[in-house]
Amino acid sequence: MSDLPQKVMINEEGPREGFQIESASIPTRDKVALIDMLSQTGVKHMQIVSFVNPKAVPGMADAEQVVTAVKMNPAIDYTGLWLNQRGYKRALATDRLTMEGAITLYASNGFLQRNQNRTPQQQLAAQHELIAMYQADGVPIKRAFISSAFGCNFEGDIPVARVVDLVGQVLAIAREHGENPGRVGLGDTMGWATPESIRRVVGAVRDQFPELPLSLHLHDTRGMGIANAYAGLQMGVDAYDSAVAGLGGCPFAGNRGAAGNVCTEDLVFMCEEMGIDTGIDLERMIECALFAEKVVGHPLSGSVKTGGILGKYRKAK
Amino acid sequence: MSDLPQKVMINEEGPREGFQIESASIPTRDKVALIDMLSQTGVKHMQIVSFVNPKAVPGMADAEQVVTAVKMNPAIDYTGLWLNQRGYKRALATDRLTMEGAITLYASNGFLQRNQNRTPQQQLAAQHELIAMYQADGVPIKRAFISSAFGCNFEGDIPVARVVDLVGQVLAIAREHGENPGRVGLGDTMGWATPESIRRVVGAVRDQFPELPLSLHLHDTRGMGIANAYAGLQMGVDAYDSAVAGLGGCPFAGNRGAAGNVCTEDLVFMCEEMGIDTGIDLERMIECALFAEKVVGHPLSGSVKTGGILGKYRKAK
Repeated sequence: MSDLPQKVMINEEGPREGFQIESASIPTRDKVALIDMLSQTGVKHMQIVSFVNPKAVPGMADAEQVVTAVKMNPAIDYTGLWLNQRGYKRALATDRLTMEGAITLYASNGFLQRNQNRTPQQQLAAQHELIAMYQADGVPIKRAFISSAFGCNFEGDIPVARVVDLVGQVLAIAREHGENPGRVGLGDTMGWATPESIRRVVGAVRDQFPELPLSLHLHDTRGMGIANAYAGLQMGVDAYDSAVAGLGGCPFAGNRGAAGNVCTEDLVFMCEEMGIDTGIDLERMIECALFAEKVVGHPLSGSVKTGGILGKYRKAK
Repeated sequence: MSDLPQKVMINEEGPREGFQIESASIPTRDKVALIDMLSQTGVKHMQIVSFVNPKAVPGMADAEQVVTAVKMNPAIDYTGLWLNQRGYKRALATDRLTMEGAITLYASNGFLQRNQNRTPQQQLAAQHELIAMYQADGVPIKRAFISSAFGCNFEGDIPVARVVDLVGQVLAIAREHGENPGRVGLGDTMGWATPESIRRVVGAVRDQFPELPLSLHLHDTRGMGIANAYAGLQMGVDAYDSAVAGLGGCPFAGNRGAAGNVCTEDLVFMCEEMGIDTGIDLERMIECALFAEKVVGHPLSGSVKTGGILGKYRKAK
């Protein structure tokens, strides 16, 4: 009937996804308080900041202060995001983050052009340089990523064969440098995926690379996030990026419209109710979601934080 | 891999679900304007009002005026909801609605007790009386419904076998009166279902009644609505109740938390993107959703109305 994993790994990206888009006036101590709360939920991987140009992303200008102030839980890999060498050096300089190298290719050339101002050839060359830099610093290559794998506002639908080909390309680049990224992530960067396209793309990648662990990065722009995660689970995908409370949605939309990542506590609710172990304490994650809402000062999109968990009704019975 | 239907029937319940919970101060003309807009979307079935005690549900006190003012599109079945004989007589008296008899059993005895103050035996007896009344008025029995089929705040989890048994019971009641409801609806009245429980319950009902057309009534309380609809589609269920913009959510939650039915335009988006014909014009449905938001005066939970459709990006390519 389906092939659900027994266990999934959740990579919490709420602090990074959220605070880079929220008002810059959120105090550093509130960001740190949210991260510290998230550290007590059982989550094992958390991306907490991005090292980007503070003029472009004022909400992340305090990235170093955040990293310095967080009470690091040794059971958790705390990571940061960077888009260039300058950001990478800032991350390295904090000396507190789990440094993980990632190599990224784009399924949409149009998006690659706008986002990085590069051709596919230039992007390939840049990945070789990145790996050399990571190797020089002893930073392991932990993940490869295919961006905009399910469709793109600048290019429309993406052929499935192109995604499969790109997965082969990132694996080849890594191999050339003696590296083996443990996992390849497929990104629905602009919220184009449906459950059926998730099944189609994951299925095609699986057919070609049956042993390759995959992860999904799902944006909830059109409300398909949880359904897409379910389709991923049915295909056996056992790792997901997600954001507490659905942090990352456009703060001006007033609702879940222009949305960030799929909501962590809703995803945890679905998994746990279906017998899939996330390692996460749902009640604590909901407390984090409610606190996140206080911190940003406007409603966030997650549902379970308002709808409530089922355990209390079962107990009350 | 899956057994998606080629076509689904959507029963729009936004006006009824929404206005019974929203502030009573919404002008009748705005309700009528929304219903008239919805009448131009291609939807074929629409529940527009409920005939209930105006003291308990002030937002529906103008039910008769709404029904009288709507510009009826002859391609659409406009229906109303009633909970007792008094409400039924009011609906009948408008002489403008498509009168459809429904018989309902409850999978949760606890909910039945609180909602109707009846034992299961009393509920069974009441259905016999209802059918006799419908038959006396020449109102066809068009639907049977199992409420709280996936879990209940007052009773906890519901055994699958109980739901299968209740489906057998409603069919037997109908048969006894020479009736055959065309379709049996399964209601996730309190938002307990997950995609896996949808598959489990629908699968069990299917095993016992392979030819019986089913429909799903899915509340989005915990954000599972679209994923649950996808699971229903995978099981071949081809009829869904839904609400434009997700109308019906608690107006005080400020977000999609305490939610109404699964959102029509998000459901239509998913279906159409997966090649399933809904007969609905998505752009027009989104216009209705945006108008609904204006009418109620606060953000509503649907995503596609903010995230936008994909056609424009495909055309712009």
